[in-house]
Amino acid sequence: MRSSQYLLSTLKETPSDAEIISHQLMLRAGMIRKVASGLYTWTPSGLRVLRKVEKVVREEMEAVNALEILMPMVQPADLWQESGRWEDYGPELLRLKDRHQRDFLLGPTHEEIISELVRKEISSYKQLPLTLFQIQTKFRDEIRPRFGVMRAREFVMKDAYSFHLTQESLQQAYDQMYQAYCRIFERLGLDYRPVIADTGSIGGHSSHEFHVLASSGEDAIAFSDQSDYAANVEMAEALAPTTERAAPTMELQRHDVKGDDLAALLQPLSVDAQQAVKCVVAQASDNVEAEYVLLVVRADHELNTIKAEKHPAVASPINLLDNHKLTGVHSVFTGPTQFDGLVIADHSAANLADFACGAGENGVWLTGVNWSRDATLTEVADLRNVVEGDPSPCGQGQIKIARGIEVGHIFQLGKKYSDAMKVGVLSETGKHETLTMGCYGIGVSRIVAAAIEQHHDDRGIQWPDNLAPFQAVLIPMNMHKSARVQETTEKLYAALQDAGIDVLFDDRKERPGVMFTDMELVGIPHQIVIGERNLDEGMVEYQSRKGGDKVKLSIDDVVSHLQQQLA
Amino acid sequence: MRSSQYLLSTLKETPSDAEIISHQLMLRAGMIRKVASGLYTWTPSGLRVLRKVEKVVREEMEAVNALEILMPMVQPADLWQESGRWEDYGPELLRLKDRHQRDFLLGPTHEEIISELVRKEISSYKQLPLTLFQIQTKFRDEIRPRFGVMRAREFVMKDAYSFHLTQESLQQAYDQMYQAYCRIFERLGLDYRPVIADTGSIGGHSSHEFHVLASSGEDAIAFSDQSDYAANVEMAEALAPTTERAAPTMELQRHDVKGDDLAALLQPLSVDAQQAVKCVVAQASDNVEAEYVLLVVRADHELNTIKAEKHPAVASPINLLDNHKLTGVHSVFTGPTQFDGLVIADHSAANLADFACGAGENGVWLTGVNWSRDATLTEVADLRNVVEGDPSPCGQGQIKIARGIEVGHIFQLGKKYSDAMKVGVLSETGKHETLTMGCYGIGVSRIVAAAIEQHHDDRGIQWPDNLAPFQAVLIPMNMHKSARVQETTEKLYAALQDAGIDVLFDDRKERPGVMFTDMELVGIPHQIVIGERNLDEGMVEYQSRKGGDKVKLSIDDVVSHLQQQLA
Repeated sequence: MRSSQYLLSTLKETPSDAEIISHQLMLRAGMIRKVASGLYTWTPSGLRVLRKVEKVVREEMEAVNALEILMPMVQPADLWQESGRWEDYGPELLRLKDRHQRDFLLGPTHEEIISELVRKEISSYKQLPLTLFQIQTKFRDEIRPRFGVMRAREFVMKDAYSFHLTQESLQQAYDQMYQAYCRIFERLGLDYRPVIADTGSIGGHSSHEFHVLASSGEDAIAFSDQSDYAANVEMAEALAPTTERAAPTMELQRHDVKGDDLAALLQPLSVDAQQAVKCVVAQASDNVEAEYVLLVVRADHELNTIKAEKHPAVASPINLLDNHKLTGVHSVFTGPTQFDGLVIADHSAANLADFACGAGENGVWLTGVNWSRDATLTEVADLRNVVEGDPSPCGQGQIKIARGIEVGHIFQLGKKYSDAMKVGVLSETGKHETLTMGCYGIGVSRIVAAAIEQHHDDRGIQWPDNLAPFQAVLIPMNMHKSARVQETTEKLYAALQDAGIDVLFDDRKERPGVMFTDMELVGIPHQIVIGERNLDEGMVEYQSRKGGDKVKLSIDDVVSHLQQQLA
Repeated sequence: MRSSQYLLSTLKETPSDAEIISHQLMLRAGMIRKVASGLYTWTPSGLRVLRKVEKVVREEMEAVNALEILMPMVQPADLWQESGRWEDYGPELLRLKDRHQRDFLLGPTHEEIISELVRKEISSYKQLPLTLFQIQTKFRDEIRPRFGVMRAREFVMKDAYSFHLTQESLQQAYDQMYQAYCRIFERLGLDYRPVIADTGSIGGHSSHEFHVLASSGEDAIAFSDQSDYAANVEMAEALAPTTERAAPTMELQRHDVKGDDLAALLQPLSVDAQQAVKCVVAQASDNVEAEYVLLVVRADHELNTIKAEKHPAVASPINLLDNHKLTGVHSVFTGPTQFDGLVIADHSAANLADFACGAGENGVWLTGVNWSRDATLTEVADLRNVVEGDPSPCGQGQIKIARGIEVGHIFQLGKKYSDAMKVGVLSETGKHETLTMGCYGIGVSRIVAAAIEQHHDDRGIQWPDNLAPFQAVLIPMNMHKSARVQETTEKLYAALQDAGIDVLFDDRKERPGVMFTDMELVGIPHQIVIGERNLDEGMVEYQSRKGGDKVKLSIDDVVSHLQQQLA
């Protein structure tokens, strides 16, 4: 491609409404343009990258025998009524009516449509297992679309669905898909982690998210510094201390304190946050006789409501209550010593001796508190988020925490949809069997943004080779004044094209500085600079966008040098 | 691909709701499945064909330097309010509201979005001309979706838009696009015609439709039997007779007639339809003093309202009136002899002498009528559709009429959108110039159906090589009983894949009859049959889906034979 016949559309200024670096750089590098909130046009450079992601995703799906199909974006409401999601899905589901006033929706995902297809097409166990996928435009009416294509309303997704007679077959497909996802992100040159994700009521390790690690990521990921273990911080198990609780050594003591900021209030008491606890009141479940449950974690820890909700004594969905409304005691003074209900403490909080806590009276804290002696401890459980330095739940190494951008999610759906929509086949013994399902998503357009979050510097994007809009760029210096520069560049352009290298020839009548700035912003990984001075020696100059020294190459070596770089 | 790992989904029965052959065969061959009225899922075989169309279209667009982009399917209303189409477009435009009650629509086309992009991105004449295209899902809320993907609501379209400073530049891009379209349809193996289309108010030959010829086509196309001339029947000029009108030889005579069927009424008068005229009353335009215009065509011809509307004496939009309501005279008795208004006759009607017509009184017809003597003829014009046997307006040969399916449309839009949306640049002289635009559509998904209308027999689809879901199929006879058949087929499968041939290996445990029936239905162009008997001689059998003799091939010649067939 020649720049003169291309739409480069680079911007010098950073658009003011772009908050994160990938959004800024996608606008500045001319990859996307906003049409309306959360709606973007992919300009030529952006679409080239998007298509490269699609290509890798498609190849790896086909490698695990997934068959590509294309389902409609506009879906009829009746199938969603059958699955129950027409009612359950919030306002992110864009509902609409056609000219005959029939209900439709813009598909955020396609479980219903695929279930309808499979229940009609597949009648025998012989046709199973079956995995189908599509790469398609989806719509979610986000309340606050932001960060460009990272959280757009219209976006491109790969969604795959698998159908099985048995859990073993589903597990096998799931494991294959897990491996396929790893290959995809590796081929795309991304630093990623498969992360154990929350599976709601299903439980087990039947859901993984794939995160691209980047400081701007919306999710916190806990991973082991010595193994492959990684989980969403909310999901990672906080192990119980291996040491026993120490015996009491201090007397219980009351302190009048000022204010309601926990940290400020501990200071005059000379108590470390690690030696204090904080408490929240939750509605108890019907399983227990008490009305309320006090959830207790160490003052330096965070309560994990997902974990708390899974505790049988806690009402689900979890309902955290304002103790001031219940008893008149402000939350910072709420404590376990005089609590009317069950007291469930996190392992670390339960392991404390001689600790500090709210007295259950406004303006009063206690020190030298000890479980049993001063406060009843009903139960001990994992109630908190892990923190850096915790032992990894896999048994190897310590927890580190990083930020991640979720770009993939694989999930064992089980029979959620196939029960509701009656998706079954005749088994080998002639019995009707409900199928078990898996679903597997990749945010194709989000990957483009996530890759930039991970691969950029202050001059622009640094594309991994397999994602770049062009693999290489030819930058001739003042070509319009030098026939020799022009001839050499044309010759190299033809040779690189013949070698199958996706090359941009920057043939604009621009100053070298403008060309370098643009090409670095757009992020083309490999630059060849053709200038009079080097041509005197029959040489041109190579530079990688990732930095490193400039290398002089003889003209005849350019193709093979780039082939080596791209190999 | 192995059949056992594929979703073949063929049907024995023809679904009752499929009216046309392509719809029937797409369902039976397992290419599409209906989700709701006008909404389809493309199953693996269907999507393979769709992608092959996309690939050819994309390559030919890139060959004329069109740049691919991707615009959103959901579009904001404000841009359509700017162009005026938010009001003008009928209920085919699916309007919807997002969660914030803002107006959006599902894009049936993208003139507004591309105009918005170009007015923001392009500021200098140096960046012109520019052609952008996308291959994208569109939505039109058809009142009665039918014929499967031929007239679906959600469909895949290639839409391109070009921007120019001058009409000459637009014409050049238009001509290039015309050639690109011809190459696309040729490469797809379709019998097609570029057809001069109606351009509304723009005039000239600035719009062509591309039609795939097929008897089920919704459009009638007039073409010359001796030249490339082709036009929509509505658009083709009916030339004036080259002979002068004969002199009167008969006296005017009144006849009482029965009924109101023109043909039945002419019979007792012994008058040929070619020797009679029929008349319709239209509202006159403000250009003339009369209130009404009588439009006269020969009784064997059809009035062409598009042509009539272009006549300056006729109100536009054309308003045909019920003469019975105006004057009490039924339409079949309406005639030119006592008409109170202008009388405009088609060339052929004006050329008649001694003709028959309604007397302007109910129940009475006249014979021996002559213009001037018996009826005033205000003006002569081309008012009718051409018929087979008419001289071609190009001057060469005679008109033939065929049915066509519109699969492409190229159009010189001029400044319709760029005026309304202020799309302009600074010219070389620093002046602000409004751009002139072209738009170029191809119905990608419709092509799949149109190709089947043209390429099928009573056993199924006969795909052209470049459209087929697979280029070749290996059909082993009773493979599960013969190790030799299996080994040979596996060997051939590997060899064909190595040669880059897109091959299906029908490895199902099915009787040969089932396999042949399925493969003929699916329409794979080239079959290789591997059976015990031929293997005794080291041979396999080749047959083309298009018919012709079976050919015995030595196993080693299979790859080269298929390569020759596909070349």
